[in-house]
Amino acid sequence: MFSITVRDHVMVAHSFRGEVFGPAQRLHGATFVVDARFKRLDLDGDDIVVDIGLATRELHAVLADLNYRNLDEVPAFTGVNTSTEFLAKYIADQLVDRVHEGALGEGARGLAGIEVTLHESHVAWASYERSL
Amino acid sequence: MFSITVRDHVMVAHSFRGEVFGPAQRLHGATFVVDARFKRLDLDGDDIVVDIGLATRELHAVLADLNYRNLDEVPAFTGVNTSTEFLAKYIADQLVDRVHEGALGEGARGLAGIEVTLHESHVAWASYERSL
Amino acid sequence: MFSITVRDHVMVAHSFRGEVFGPAQRLHGATFVVDARFKRLDLDGDDIVVDIGLATRELHAVLADLNYRNLDEVPAFTGVNTSTEFLAKYIADQLVDRVHEGALGEGARGLAGIEVTLHESHVAWASYERSL
Amino acid sequence: MFSITVRDHVMVAHSFRGEVFGPAQRLHGATFVVDARFKRLDLDGDDIVVDIGLATRELHAVLADLNYRNLDEVPAFTGVNTSTEFLAKYIADQLVDRVHEGALGEGARGLAGIEVTLHESHVAWASYERSL
Amino acid sequence: MFSITVRDHVMVAHSFRGEVFGPAQRLHGATFVVDARFKRLDLDGDDIVVDIGLATRELHAVLADLNYRNLDEVPAFTGVNTSTEFLAKYIADQLVDRVHEGALGEGARGLAGIEVTLHESHVAWASYERSL
Amino acid sequence: MFSITVRDHVMVAHSFRGEVFGPAQRLHGATFVVDARFKRLDLDGDDIVVDIGLATRELHAVLADLNYRNLDEVPAFTGVNTSTEFLAKYIADQLVDRVHEGALGEGARGLAGIEVTLHESHVAWASYERSL
Repeated sequence: MFSITVRDHVMVAHSFRGEVFGPAQRLHGATFVVDARFKRLDLDGDDIVVDIGLATRELHAVLADLNYRNLDEVPAFTGVNTSTEFLAKYIADQLVDRVHEGALGEGARGLAGIEVTLHESHVAWASYERSL
Repeated sequence: MFSITVRDHVMVAHSFRGEVFGPAQRLHGATFVVDARFKRLDLDGDDIVVDIGLATRELHAVLADLNYRNLDEVPAFTGVNTSTEFLAKYIADQLVDRVHEGALGEGARGLAGIEVTLHESHVAWASYERSL
Repeated sequence: MFSITVRDHVMVAHSFRGEVFGPAQRLHGATFVVDARFKRLDLDGDDIVVDIGLATRELHAVLADLNYRNLDEVPAFTGVNTSTEFLAKYIADQLVDRVHEGALGEGARGLAGIEVTLHESHVAWASYERSL
Repeated sequence: MFSITVRDHVMVAHSFRGEVFGPAQRLHGATFVVDARFKRLDLDGDDIVVDIGLATRELHAVLADLNYRNLDEVPAFTGVNTSTEFLAKYIADQLVDRVHEGALGEGARGLAGIEVTLHESHVAWASYERSL
Repeated sequence: MFSITVRDHVMVAHSFRGEVFGPAQRLHGATFVVDARFKRLDLDGDDIVVDIGLATRELHAVLADLNYRNLDEVPAFTGVNTSTEFLAKYIADQLVDRVHEGALGEGARGLAGIEVTLHESHVAWASYERSL
Repeated sequence: MFSITVRDHVMVAHSFRGEVFGPAQRLHGATFVVDARFKRLDLDGDDIVVDIGLATRELHAVLADLNYRNLDEVPAFTGVNTSTEFLAKYIADQLVDRVHEGALGEGARGLAGIEVTLHESHVAWASYERSL
């Protein structure tokens, strides 16, 4: 199995509901350093997994919709806690949609899976992995 | 598959037995930067994998039993080489015990697996992964 | 010149005022990974710069006052932009106050300077350095 | 499953053929920071996955054949793009050959798999994983 | 003293002349992860050292002139070894020129100094620091 | 001012004397990731600060004398606490001796200073800086 990974980041505000979150129930924020990993069983005709330029552009586009926002006010997130692991899935699903739309190139339709990891600090991160 | 990972560290002395270890047969030491990764198929009712506060606390507790010790004198390690990979399994198993005891919360009983990685330097690390 | 540095982090929400900030004028957030460096011309009688346990505890205490907060609502920050560089100075000044109060031990009164660096992402950080 | 990973690096020149590569069709270069991960179901009689000294030596030997070279002139790479993901497979395959030759010790014949990751910058990396 | 630092990278080919360079006299390449640090005695009216958006844009522009190139063919570098430390000075000087041209904003004219660090691998980096 | 930095590591056991050290008074150990920074006002005739190959070799040689040892038994350290900051000075001084002996090449006699940083974990490091 091959993979390539590209990194970007996003800076957001949010709050959590539920006693388990303690002081994180207050409005606070985070920088998420985001790694998007694209997996493929074989290389394509250009000897790559996916066009790294397109992968970088599309990850940036997905994050741009969230960047410098208060996630508590984003309609797509009504009624859920925008935990690091939840956001990893959200971003992975958005990337899969873009693959299906052809935004990562025709070759990307041969991808086997996507894994997204969000680093919330130097001591904590979360990930979500799915097939295509 | 979802996961969250928390990081801590431990500083220990130890020595190895066996020609394969060369100068590491002498009493020396290491800082192990320890990453504990908790995996789960679905998020729980709070939209998380596990309470990150409890995960951090329990990892710290497991490491506290080893921290600032000479592992050659720890009864649990009699007769084995406390290699980085061996310690990764030891710490993973201790965390699983704590999950079963409920120390990581009731939701943690739904965890699918745990992976522990120990970084012994900037150029070497080891890991152990198991299901729950 | 000797120094020791300890690292911790803080997660906050805030917004900026001024066209120069573009979309960061919206309420958003950040994780700041914070490095506090303590400088001293000579080592003390214990052969150290400062008690690393106290340095870690006091940095954590300074950050606890900010952690999981919306900085726009913190009275101490009224009328200023809580930029990364501004916060580096704020935290450094708080640490200096604690040194003068004796919270870092008697030996800490011999410190020559403090430098605080805040990492806001993998591609941007800011610092402030001052003498004691 | 256990694993150990060792890190080294290599500095090469190369160019790519294909419109997808844009300006990278020009002769340029890269530092690849290379992580070689060795997997094994159980520890051997010395309580390790593989002799870390031999793993380090053999990874260095594989990279020495590429280091400070223009990959466009290496016969083994004629007609292919030496993309980061392609090189990850090349290095993994070379390591597997060395395992089979006994260069990583007799115990290494019990390895389950090898994964090689090449970091081409702080924001992009690629990997290849195979069984033995 | 305040500072902010932004990070980007560049991928180049080059060769060195001189026995001291050993195998690096051959055409090879490098990824340089580049940190540009901007220093200022006091914050400006917006409570910042310099507009981080402009700093990022101008560093990227300086690197774009070098990116995906064989430095042996760049006229500006005729007759010199494009060592990591030499390139750190070249990039710092280019940034200072842009500050003087106003490309980093009017406030940037108050900068005290610039330091550029180039990471050539996980085990080696070089820097150049100058006043404005 | 120019500088180049090279990184290596060392794994040692030791213990501390003094109440300030708490549990670190017990025999324990550490991995120190060691950065040696060499400073010079101008580049030499080869357009470098110092031969990076010799710098790497000499740092490795200095660390080899400490590696896989119990520092409590090293005669040079009798009666002192081998704190991270103390060891930073010890290594810097050893490197300066080697510069004076010519081990880093004739050009190294033009060095202005050396700074050594020891990382004892992901959250703590110490350094010592001196002129030549």
